[in-house]
Amino acid sequence: MARMSLAEKVAQLYGVWVGIDNSDGEMAPHQHEFTSLPVGWDELVQNGIGQLTRPFGTAPVDVLTGATTLANAQRAIAAAGRWGVPALVHEECLTGLAAWKATVYPSPLCWGAGFDPDLVERMGAQIGATMRRLGIHQGLAPVMDVARDLRWGRVEETIGEDPVLVGTIGSAYVRGVQSAGVIATLKHFVGYSASKAGRNLAPVSVGRREIADVLLPPFEMALRAGADSVMNSYADIDGVPVAADPALLTDLLRDTYGFTGTVVADYFSVAFLQTLHNVAESPGDAARLALTAGIDVELPTVNAYGPPLIEAIGRGEVDVALVDRALRRVLLQKVRLGLLDEGWAPEPAVLEETGDAVLDGESQRALAGELARRSVVLLSNTGSLPLAAGLRLAVVGPRADTPQAMMGCYSFPMHVGVHHPDVPIGIEIPTLAEALRADPAGYDVRYEQGVPVLGGDDEGIAAAVAAAAAADVCVAVLGDQAGLFGRGTSGEGCDAASLRLPGRQEELLEAVLATGVPVVLVLLVGRPYELARQIDRLAAVVCGFFPGEEGARALADVLSGRADPAGRLPVSFPGDGGNQPSTYLAAPLGGRSEVSSVDPTPLFPFGHGLSYTPITWKGVTADAEATWPTDGTFDVRVTLHNGAAGPVSDVVQVYLHDPVAEVARPVQSLLTAHRVDLQPGETREVTITLHADQTSYTGASGRRLVDPGAVELRVGASSRDIRETISVSMTGPRRHVGFDRVMAATVTSADAEG
Amino acid sequence: MARMSLAEKVAQLYGVWVGIDNSDGEMAPHQHEFTSLPVGWDELVQNGIGQLTRPFGTAPVDVLTGATTLANAQRAIAAAGRWGVPALVHEECLTGLAAWKATVYPSPLCWGAGFDPDLVERMGAQIGATMRRLGIHQGLAPVMDVARDLRWGRVEETIGEDPVLVGTIGSAYVRGVQSAGVIATLKHFVGYSASKAGRNLAPVSVGRREIADVLLPPFEMALRAGADSVMNSYADIDGVPVAADPALLTDLLRDTYGFTGTVVADYFSVAFLQTLHNVAESPGDAARLALTAGIDVELPTVNAYGPPLIEAIGRGEVDVALVDRALRRVLLQKVRLGLLDEGWAPEPAVLEETGDAVLDGESQRALAGELARRSVVLLSNTGSLPLAAGLRLAVVGPRADTPQAMMGCYSFPMHVGVHHPDVPIGIEIPTLAEALRADPAGYDVRYEQGVPVLGGDDEGIAAAVAAAAAADVCVAVLGDQAGLFGRGTSGEGCDAASLRLPGRQEELLEAVLATGVPVVLVLLVGRPYELARQIDRLAAVVCGFFPGEEGARALADVLSGRADPAGRLPVSFPGDGGNQPSTYLAAPLGGRSEVSSVDPTPLFPFGHGLSYTPITWKGVTADAEATWPTDGTFDVRVTLHNGAAGPVSDVVQVYLHDPVAEVARPVQSLLTAHRVDLQPGETREVTITLHADQTSYTGASGRRLVDPGAVELRVGASSRDIRETISVSMTGPRRHVGFDRVMAATVTSADAEG
Repeated sequence: MARMSLAEKVAQLYGVWVGIDNSDGEMAPHQHEFTSLPVGWDELVQNGIGQLTRPFGTAPVDVLTGATTLANAQRAIAAAGRWGVPALVHEECLTGLAAWKATVYPSPLCWGAGFDPDLVERMGAQIGATMRRLGIHQGLAPVMDVARDLRWGRVEETIGEDPVLVGTIGSAYVRGVQSAGVIATLKHFVGYSASKAGRNLAPVSVGRREIADVLLPPFEMALRAGADSVMNSYADIDGVPVAADPALLTDLLRDTYGFTGTVVADYFSVAFLQTLHNVAESPGDAARLALTAGIDVELPTVNAYGPPLIEAIGRGEVDVALVDRALRRVLLQKVRLGLLDEGWAPEPAVLEETGDAVLDGESQRALAGELARRSVVLLSNTGSLPLAAGLRLAVVGPRADTPQAMMGCYSFPMHVGVHHPDVPIGIEIPTLAEALRADPAGYDVRYEQGVPVLGGDDEGIAAAVAAAAAADVCVAVLGDQAGLFGRGTSGEGCDAASLRLPGRQEELLEAVLATGVPVVLVLLVGRPYELARQIDRLAAVVCGFFPGEEGARALADVLSGRADPAGRLPVSFPGDGGNQPSTYLAAPLGGRSEVSSVDPTPLFPFGHGLSYTPITWKGVTADAEATWPTDGTFDVRVTLHNGAAGPVSDVVQVYLHDPVAEVARPVQSLLTAHRVDLQPGETREVTITLHADQTSYTGASGRRLVDPGAVELRVGASSRDIRETISVSMTGPRRHVGFDRVMAATVTSADAEG
Repeated sequence: MARMSLAEKVAQLYGVWVGIDNSDGEMAPHQHEFTSLPVGWDELVQNGIGQLTRPFGTAPVDVLTGATTLANAQRAIAAAGRWGVPALVHEECLTGLAAWKATVYPSPLCWGAGFDPDLVERMGAQIGATMRRLGIHQGLAPVMDVARDLRWGRVEETIGEDPVLVGTIGSAYVRGVQSAGVIATLKHFVGYSASKAGRNLAPVSVGRREIADVLLPPFEMALRAGADSVMNSYADIDGVPVAADPALLTDLLRDTYGFTGTVVADYFSVAFLQTLHNVAESPGDAARLALTAGIDVELPTVNAYGPPLIEAIGRGEVDVALVDRALRRVLLQKVRLGLLDEGWAPEPAVLEETGDAVLDGESQRALAGELARRSVVLLSNTGSLPLAAGLRLAVVGPRADTPQAMMGCYSFPMHVGVHHPDVPIGIEIPTLAEALRADPAGYDVRYEQGVPVLGGDDEGIAAAVAAAAAADVCVAVLGDQAGLFGRGTSGEGCDAASLRLPGRQEELLEAVLATGVPVVLVLLVGRPYELARQIDRLAAVVCGFFPGEEGARALADVLSGRADPAGRLPVSFPGDGGNQPSTYLAAPLGGRSEVSSVDPTPLFPFGHGLSYTPITWKGVTADAEATWPTDGTFDVRVTLHNGAAGPVSDVVQVYLHDPVAEVARPVQSLLTAHRVDLQPGETREVTITLHADQTSYTGASGRRLVDPGAVELRVGASSRDIRETISVSMTGPRRHVGFDRVMAATVTSADAEG
C-alpha cells in the first residue's frame, strides 16, 4: 500500500459497471449518466479497478462466452496495473445467480415459509458454487431487512417480519454461499424496510430501540455467521442518511460488532447524498461523507470516489488515512479470495477446460423443487383440497399460465426484462396450468386468463366464469407481476397503495365465486393481500409467494395431495383494510381494537399454515419448578406424533410474552422455531433449550437487559395457535447482556414412544 | 404544605369525575370501573379534592342549575377539609365549552384554514369567559399535535400538518382562553399524532430529530404564549410511554423549557402504564412511574394516585418529595387562580345574581360565523361557483340536512351523544339545505339524502339521481359523522383504514356525476379524502371541515358568492391511493415518484385555496444584495392589489428550501404566513421580516443550528403556487441557537400605491 499512488489506491475503491454480450467477446464499461470516470477501457484499467459490476447481469450471455470474456478481462486488468491486482467481481444472486439460464430458486418469503435453514444453506452453497466457477467473487445477497410495511415493493425480497426468522434463515444462506468461497453481502444495513408508507426510498421514522430490537438482530446474526460484506441502506433514518452515518457504519458495525470485511455502497447511494438526500454539496463532498462514515467501495460505478475524491484530498478536505482504511479492507478481502496469490489465474479456466456450461442442472432443479414444496402455505381449506384425481378443473387467473408468475424481481428473467422484455427465459419454468395438465392425478384442465394482472375487460371475466361454471373446481391463480421501477406490482420500486389484489383480480375472484363452484385460490405474490371479503366463501387458499422454476410442480404436488403442505407464514395476512404498517410484533396498545375503529388483527397470523393431516401434539412440558435463572437456560419439551398414512411436517414455535417490562414490548415475539418431520407412525420429542438472554430487550437506558420476574412461554403451531402456555419465574439479578446468546436456542430431537 | 397529612397532599393530585344533572341539584362522583377511591361523597371530600372532572360534560344540564350545584359543591369541599382548599374544575372546550347549549365554534382544522390568529384568540377569549363564569378553571384544549397521518381519527382536532401553523394558531387560542383567567391545557405532549397506521393509541415510531423539528415546536410556542398546563400524550415513543418518561416531562419540559405550571394526565393514562403499556406491575407502581416522570395530577379520576400511591410511599417505593413537587405546582396554580384567597367564593355567584343563563349569545354566534366564513376552502372551480340566484338546486348527500354534519367529536352534542343519543342539541344549528333554502339568492332547493354516511341502498341513490337530473346544479354534501370510540367516521377512536369517502358516498357521487348536471361537492369532514377519481368531472369542490353552529350560513355565503372563499388548506388532500403517512413536509426522497410506483404528490397541497376574484400579486421583492447574516434578519416585501368589486383576502406564504444541510430536510417548510384583507381597489405592501434562526434545524449532533450557505425563500399563495423564489446567501458563522427566534417572523402591512 505504501508504494501505491493515490490514483491506484482510489481505483480499488470503486466498481465499474460492465456488460458482456455474445457479440464479440469483448467487455465494455457500461455507459451510465452518473459516472465521472473516463470511459475508454485502456484509460480505465491503468490504475486498476476495485470491482467489476454485474458482467452477467445486463444481457443474456452464453455462459462459456461470458466466463471466458470475464477471465480475459481479469487478466488484462491485472496486467495493466503496476501491482497485478485483478478486480473483485460481483453479481446479484438473491434467488440464484442473476445470469441467463441459471437456476431460479424460490424467493426469500418462501425460505421464510420453509422454516428450514438447512435447505436454504444447501441452496446458498449451490448458488455460491455456480458463481465461483464463473469467476464471480461476491454476491449481493441476502436481504436481511425485516418486513415492516407490506406495501413496500421489496417485501418479496425479505425473509419475513420476524427478526429471529430472518436472522436464522439469512445466516444459513450466508453460510451456504460463503462455503463455496463467494462473499455474501448483507443488505441493507439498516432501516430500509421501514420507509414511510412503504414507499421505496422514503424517509424512515424509527427510534433507536426499534432499530436495536427489530432491525439489527438479523444483521448481528449473519455477521456472526461470517458474512464478509455489508451493503448500506439507502434510508435516511430520522434525517441522517445511513450512507453518511459513522455511528452505524463504523461505531456500531466495526467497533461494536468487530466486523472486518467491506462495506459496499448500495447502487448510487453515495451520489444520492448529493442528489437526493441533499447533505452533500458536490460529488467530492459526497465521497468525504461516505468514506468518513465507513463505505469502502462505491458501487455500481463511480460518481464520487474517483476524480472527485482525489480532488477533495488535494484540497485537504479528506484525510488520505480514510482511503487507506478502506483500501486495507478491500485488499485483505482480495488476499483472502486468493486474487493476490502468486500464480493467480481467473477461475473460469476450470470451466473452459470442462466445458460445463449448464447452470441449471439436475441437482439445482431438485433442490429448487424441494425448497418450493417445503414452503407452500395452506392458509385455509374447507375440504376441497387435496383435489381428487380426475376432476374437471377450471384454472383461471393471470398467474395461472405464465412462467413469470413464479419469479421475483431479482431473478434474471424479471430483472433483465425491464430492459430486454423480449429475452427468452432460457430455462424450463412450467406454469401451474401446465403442471396440473401434466399431473399424474389426471385432471381435465381448462384454462382461462380472465384478466391480466392489471387491466382487463368484462369479456375476459365472462370467459373465466364460463370455464368455472363448467368445472368441478375452479383454481384461481392470482397475484403479482414482479418488476422494477414501477413496471410491476411487486419488486423494487413497485410499491402498493393498498393491499387489495392488483387490477381487477378481486373482481375476477368475485365472479368465479358467484358461480357456486368451489374456488381454490392460489396466490403467487410478493406480499400478502387482503382476503377478508372473500375468505368465508373460498373453498381453500394456498400461498406460494414466488416459488421459483419448480414452483408449479411443487404447487401441483400440494394441490393433488402428493405432498402435505408444510409452509408457515413468514408474514401476516392483513385483516380488512390492510392498515399498514402492521406486523405481529405489536405492543398491547398497537394490537388493541377497542380504542380504534381499525382492527389490526391479521386474517392469518405469523407462523400460520395448515396441513392436510395435522401432527398430533401429544404434550408440551417444562421443568416442574418453572424457574429460570436470569443467566441460565430453560428447557421446553414438545412431543409430536404422526398418526397419518404419509410423512408430515410441522413447525414448533416458541413465543415470549413479557407481562411487565421497562418499556412497551410486543405482546409476543418468536424465540425460536423448529421444523419437525415425521414419518407415518413416528413420535418425536423435541427439546428446546432457551437461554435467558433470549428474553432480553433494549431497556429504558438503551442497553440490552434481562429482567427477573414472570414471563410466559407460548408454545404452538402459529403465533395464534398456541398449544401450551408455560408461566416461568425468572430469578436472579437484573443483567445487562450482549448479543452472544440472544439467538442461542438449541434444539435436540429424539425418537419417542408413540 | 408542611402541615398537610400525606392523605391530604395526595388528594390534591387527582381528579374526581363528577356529573351534574337537572334532577336534584346534587353532584355525585361518577362511578367508574377504574377508580380506587371510596365513592361516598363525605368520605371523598374529607382530605380535599384536587380537581373536579367535567361536571357539565356528561349530561345536558340547565346552566343555572349546573353552576349553582357546582358552586355549592365547591363550598362543601372547601368546608370539609382542614385547609379550605376548593377543587380546580376542568372541562373540555376544544370547539367551545363542551356543555349543553354552549356555542359550537368551528373545529381546529377550520382555525388552521383561516390563517387568522386574531380571530382564534377572540374565540378563545369568549370560550374562557363562558367557562370562568360557570366556575370552571381549566380547559382541556388546545390540541397542539401536528397531523402526521390522515387516517388518524383525531386529525379533526388538530390545526393542521405544519408546526408553524399549529403553533401560531394554537398559541392564539391559549392567549384567548387564558386572558379570561382560565388555564389552557396543551394536548398531547408529545407524539400522539404519529401513531402506527394512524390507529388511535398505537405505538409511535419517530426519532428524536423529528420530535424536535416537527412535533415539539407548537408546544414550545404555546408555552411561550403562557400556557399554564400540559397534558401528556398516551403514546409510547420507541417503546417508552410518555406518561413514564422523565426525559420529556421533566428534563425537557421543566428544565429546558422552564415550564412552571401543571402536567395533568390524559384520561386513564396513568392506569394504562399497567394495563396497556405493561411497564408497571400495579397501580402503585404506575403512580411511582408517572409521578417520577412528572405527571402532577391524575385524571379523570384516581386509579393510582390515591390509596395505591400512599401505600407505595409507605413501602418506601416512592419518595414523598415527589408528592411535594407535584403538590407545590398544584397549590401554586390554585393560588394564582385565587382559590386560596381570603374571602374566596365560587365564581357562579355572579351568574346567580344576573341570571345570565345564555351560553350562546349574539356575540358568540357572530364570531362563530366569522371564523366559519374565514375558513371555507374553495379547492376547485370550473365556473359553476358562485351559484347564480334563483337556480334549481338538488342538494343531496348524508351531510346536507343534519346539524351533526357541522360538529366534530369534541363538541358537546357529539361527545355526549355517545352516551345520550336522544339529547336534543339545544341550540340552533342550521343545515346546509336549510341555509340554502333560506338564502337571499332565492334558490329552489330539493333535498335528497341519497345514502347515509355509512350504508344505504340503491333506492336512495336513485332518488338523489332523480333530484340531480331535474336540477340546474347538484350540490353534493358528503363527509364524516363525528363520534367517539368507533361510533363515527372521524373523531377519537374513529380511525380510517383508507382515505376513500366513507360508506357508499363515492358511489352516490359517481351516480350524480353520471347525470351530466354540474356537481358541486361540499365536504364536511374531519380529514381530507381521496378525490382523484372524480376531480376532473366535478364542477367545483368546497371544503368546510366541521364549521360549527354557523357553518351552514357561512357555506351558503360562499356558495352564493356573498362571501369570497378565504380558507387555505391546513392539511394536504392526498392523491390517488392515499398512501399515508404523508404530509407536505417531505424530504426529497419521500416526495419522489420516480423510484416508487406510489406517487405521494397531493391532489391539493398544503396552503391551497382559491378565491372567486384573485388578488393581484404585483410584486415580491427582497434586499438587492440578497445576503442574510446567520444571526440577522432578512426582509421580503409583497405587494398585493384588489382589482375586484368586493373585498377579498389572500394568505401570503413564505417557504424555506435548503439545498444542502447536515441532515435530510423537507423540500420546503413554512416559515410564516400572513393573511391580507383588501377592500376594492386597495393596494398593500406587506413586509415580512424573517430571522435567521427561522432557517434552523436539528443537525446531526442533535442541536439546533443555523448554517451559512445558500437558501431559497419561496413566496407564494400555496406550497405549490409559488409566485417568486428568492435565492439568498446566508453569511457568517455556523451557529447553535435556541428556540427564542425560531418563530420570530414579524409582519407589517402598509397602504401602497395602486
